[in-house]
Amino acid sequence: MKIVVIGAGNVGTNLINALRDKHDIVQIVSKTEHSARKAALKFNTDYTTKLDNVNKDSDVYIISVNDTFVQDVAGNIAVENKIILHTAGSMDLDTVKTKYNNYGVFYPLQTFSKNKLLDFSDIPLCIEANNKNTEKIICELASSISSKVFVINSEQRKYIHLAAVFVCNFTNHLYNISYQILKNKGLDFDLLKPLISETADKVLNILPADAQTGPAVRKDEIIIEKHLKLLLFDTKLQKIYKDLTNNIIETHTKYGEF
Amino acid sequence: MKIVVIGAGNVGTNLINALRDKHDIVQIVSKTEHSARKAALKFNTDYTTKLDNVNKDSDVYIISVNDTFVQDVAGNIAVENKIILHTAGSMDLDTVKTKYNNYGVFYPLQTFSKNKLLDFSDIPLCIEANNKNTEKIICELASSISSKVFVINSEQRKYIHLAAVFVCNFTNHLYNISYQILKNKGLDFDLLKPLISETADKVLNILPADAQTGPAVRKDEIIIEKHLKLLLFDTKLQKIYKDLTNNIIETHTKYGEF
Repeated sequence: MKIVVIGAGNVGTNLINALRDKHDIVQIVSKTEHSARKAALKFNTDYTTKLDNVNKDSDVYIISVNDTFVQDVAGNIAVENKIILHTAGSMDLDTVKTKYNNYGVFYPLQTFSKNKLLDFSDIPLCIEANNKNTEKIICELASSISSKVFVINSEQRKYIHLAAVFVCNFTNHLYNISYQILKNKGLDFDLLKPLISETADKVLNILPADAQTGPAVRKDEIIIEKHLKLLLFDTKLQKIYKDLTNNIIETHTKYGEF
Repeated sequence: MKIVVIGAGNVGTNLINALRDKHDIVQIVSKTEHSARKAALKFNTDYTTKLDNVNKDSDVYIISVNDTFVQDVAGNIAVENKIILHTAGSMDLDTVKTKYNNYGVFYPLQTFSKNKLLDFSDIPLCIEANNKNTEKIICELASSISSKVFVINSEQRKYIHLAAVFVCNFTNHLYNISYQILKNKGLDFDLLKPLISETADKVLNILPADAQTGPAVRKDEIIIEKHLKLLLFDTKLQKIYKDLTNNIIETHTKYGEF
């Protein structure tokens, strides 16, 4: 397929890289000249900074910009009768409807960085379309780069995106909190890396509830009190510790597994 | 070395398995007959349920029981002039002092399950001893199974244990929260597994602060409000979402990196 990608951020850059082996990325659109040119050079393709100058002759236009701008961008692409997709987990299908008859969602459920280009073959692609024919085309496009393609409606996708915030953004913040705790004591974050990896690996094979360990699930009040004292230097961290600990205790008491 | 391991829980079982290739595990002590016999059969060694019947002729006695019982167990092992170690991240060195001249800590910084025996070669072992000679012996023991041996004092170890609670126990609880969010909507937790793995993989090579993505670090108030509405069904989860989001915003504003 001939594809235009609008947006050269973390998601856009990774998408272009994944799609270009199987498809023709005819143009990259990015609002700053610097970012547009850089991406175009990197992937050896054409670029523009203006939606008016978009290539008119492509099959699919993928909008991969900040959630806030998706609708505005969709309405201003100077094309008609084309398939318009967005990649935002939290946005409804209809965000890109504007003036089009064929549109959809192409949401890769992963965390991306511009400077780490990922292999898409195992990345879940959550797709949605406004009609069966468009769904078929998006499904073909998705299947060309990943073995994990799921038709997911906007209501379901909202919850997937919410869950993703917990396992990715919040988890990463817990890593950052730990980094700071160790740094304050002159200790190296490397110490925690095998633990971080194993914690993630464990839930690939067992349920998170069954993998829970530590003072909270053991209701070890002495250790919990000790930890809260160590966190006196930051009352907000202390609150996060308390809330997560109480939530672990309540969850596991409720389900009676521990 | 000849070693007695007291406790056949998650840590004890993994330690026995790691040590038995290089050392002689002469006895396993566990308070219930069932657990003691099961471990002894599994690792083809002797067992007892009574501290009075402990093997008197070993070099090292490793106490791997619930934190609350470490001191009591140490004081009641029927041996003298031996090296006594505990494995608890949150307990001071002196917890095992009781009646001994040579004692220490052997804290493997990892999350363990009885039914998943881990390779110790990359697991950080945080050791401490009450004198140089004992430290040397513990260091030899640790180095025989892991390439990552660190002398860490009790004060430092407290903070390492606290940080471990954040990256392991709390992170696992976030996985569990996500599992429940998806389950409520009939969606499969498998969807999130590539994201969980990549989130953990990322911080092996870049700082957690630099890996932060998502609505909080972008200060995307529209998405944050949408997520808080989706969490109306559980006000405690909503609070956890709010606190973590605010903490991400404050941390990244403070350090001015985003």
